Amino acid sequence: MSNQANAIIPAMRLSELGEFGLINLIRTASARYENPGRTPWREMLLGIGDDAAAWQSGNHIQLATTDTLVQSVHFDLGVITWEELGWKALAVNLSDIAAMGGIPKYALLSLALPAKLKVKDVSEFIDSFMHMAMEFGVAIVGGNVATAPNIVITVTIIGCSKGRTMLQRSTASPGDQIAVTGYVGLSAAGLEMLKGKTIPDPEARNILRQAHFKPMPRVKEGQILIEQGVRTAIDISDGLLADLDHICESSKVNAKINIEQVPVHPVVTAHFPNSQDLALSGGEDYELLFTADQAAITRAKRALNCPVTVIGEIAKEQLPTRVIVVNGEGTIIPCKKRGWNHFKNAVSNVEFI
Amino acid sequence: MSNQANAIIPAMRLSELGEFGLINLIRTASARYENPGRTPWREMLLGIGDDAAAWQSGNHIQLATTDTLVQSVHFDLGVITWEELGWKALAVNLSDIAAMGGIPKYALLSLALPAKLKVKDVSEFIDSFMHMAMEFGVAIVGGNVATAPNIVITVTIIGCSKGRTMLQRSTASPGDQIAVTGYVGLSAAGLEMLKGKTIPDPEARNILRQAHFKPMPRVKEGQILIEQGVRTAIDISDGLLADLDHICESSKVNAKINIEQVPVHPVVTAHFPNSQDLALSGGEDYELLFTADQAAITRAKRALNCPVTVIGEIAKEQLPTRVIVVNGEGTIIPCKKRGWNHFKNAVSNVEFI
Repeated sequence: MSNQANAIIPAMRLSELGEFGLINLIRTASARYENPGRTPWREMLLGIGDDAAAWQSGNHIQLATTDTLVQSVHFDLGVITWEELGWKALAVNLSDIAAMGGIPKYALLSLALPAKLKVKDVSEFIDSFMHMAMEFGVAIVGGNVATAPNIVITVTIIGCSKGRTMLQRSTASPGDQIAVTGYVGLSAAGLEMLKGKTIPDPEARNILRQAHFKPMPRVKEGQILIEQGVRTAIDISDGLLADLDHICESSKVNAKINIEQVPVHPVVTAHFPNSQDLALSGGEDYELLFTADQAAITRAKRALNCPVTVIGEIAKEQLPTRVIVVNGEGTIIPCKKRGWNHFKNAVSNVEFI
Repeated sequence: MSNQANAIIPAMRLSELGEFGLINLIRTASARYENPGRTPWREMLLGIGDDAAAWQSGNHIQLATTDTLVQSVHFDLGVITWEELGWKALAVNLSDIAAMGGIPKYALLSLALPAKLKVKDVSEFIDSFMHMAMEFGVAIVGGNVATAPNIVITVTIIGCSKGRTMLQRSTASPGDQIAVTGYVGLSAAGLEMLKGKTIPDPEARNILRQAHFKPMPRVKEGQILIEQGVRTAIDISDGLLADLDHICESSKVNAKINIEQVPVHPVVTAHFPNSQDLALSGGEDYELLFTADQAAITRAKRALNCPVTVIGEIAKEQLPTRVIVVNGEGTIIPCKKRGWNHFKNAVSNVEFI
């Protein structure tokens, strides 16, 4: 990537480069201008490329993460309520701190809003945001308001590690088991329902809507993983396969998962013939995907108050296929749509910390 | 303000509430949900209402600030270059850390960008941003990229105090002198030029463009002010009078300034008949406005490598007029347009940390 800046084709558009290409561009430029002799670079533990940035600050590790929600790209005001939007704006950021096993502490809220919005609606958003912040022990210390033609909400959370360690993407080892908290596929199934798919069962409708609009970040669970000796994790925002691929890429390992072990929620299995796709590639589950040796996984299972399912194993690196999906008989299942392919020209929000 | 949430008129729009009204809404909601027993609230030193948030972290003070630039609201791509935009996006944030006398250390860059943008252009922006970050010793540790119909750039900077103190808005005392670094009015004059006013002198054109698009944040100067015993400062982003009003409001004092002492840049005086208005209410100068006793001001003048001008004095609070402008004879000059009035329905970017 080092010569990427020189290799740019003059007429190339961001749509052709894709989000991950853009992140690489930022990462390359950042590396070009780094100054290893100065304090911030010397203290930095994790820069671009994990769920949160991390740096040493005295005796503890500081964490910071940011995420943006754009109207008509990430949410549709015709469907989501302002209260749900307030929840989700904070939840997706808290989930990044959860993926580090960290403690969220301070948040900054930046709102770019059309002047024609009703104060009552924005007030509902703010109230929901603040309420959730309090529940998670996060103080809102500032932010920014600006007018804009289209709503853009950017939240930054600053936190710290629990003790002297954190969960990372880059520490998976061959032989590690791969496990996941809760269920996957619910949020993507919820989106299908909100886009028009009929679900007759009202209870199922509630579960699906909740999963998509009010995901519960696994903050406490991330901290428990650290306590039980787990060191590798990511939150499932891009999709199970895509996020497992991120771990494999960072850790320079491969992964094999058994499709029959993946915890698809019963509501998804019952109402969605494509439940397998939704579970593997749907994204926005905000569950924790983690790897560790068998002993740590067993301890984590015992300590956590949520379902924990082992879905596969980490293996030595053997490119080009980093993540393999097999069935109960061990036969490889071709997965056409692996989450990480569809970002290039479609979905459009990627945090790079 | 405590009952504001209950007092909202159902049909009221943000345009009627205004930016400062919205910030008050956020501040009130934040106060309603604070939890003084928990660590983040206990450690917080400055929340909403200064140039940056501040909290105690072990032996030192952490600072955080965020600022947003919205296309067609804060910048016009037909006029600003991508390189200038990269500079300005970081500069306005660095200036907030400067206003605390702090050391900027880490930055997060959130880009909401239309997919049709040229990679070459975005790359120029990123390069300029990273280059400036390096010059100021700031490491880019992460961020977010998202597609959006309109460019929205949000930058968050995390830093720390130099020693155990910081500059604040709330510490001005009656008898303090009021001083300002550099010159005021250049940036607003630059905007008038960019909007079409003819300036024949090419050197003047350069100075004006530079002042508007590539302001130099007074980071080093803020740190020197701390060393010389100054404790009260703000950066001039809203305009000299508006920002002096912020100090007076926070410190519960009044201020009197002498219009003849205000350091209007010669280029502004030479080319703009409304130079006085531009200097008092123009904004975006990113100079430091500070107050201290005479001895500290004298030390600061000696220690700083930039012009420092005493423009007035802090007095006891005597509402409703917090800031009075007088001429050389001491006669009060009515200032119709005082910066802080025009936010309500016009200018549109206010950081609230």
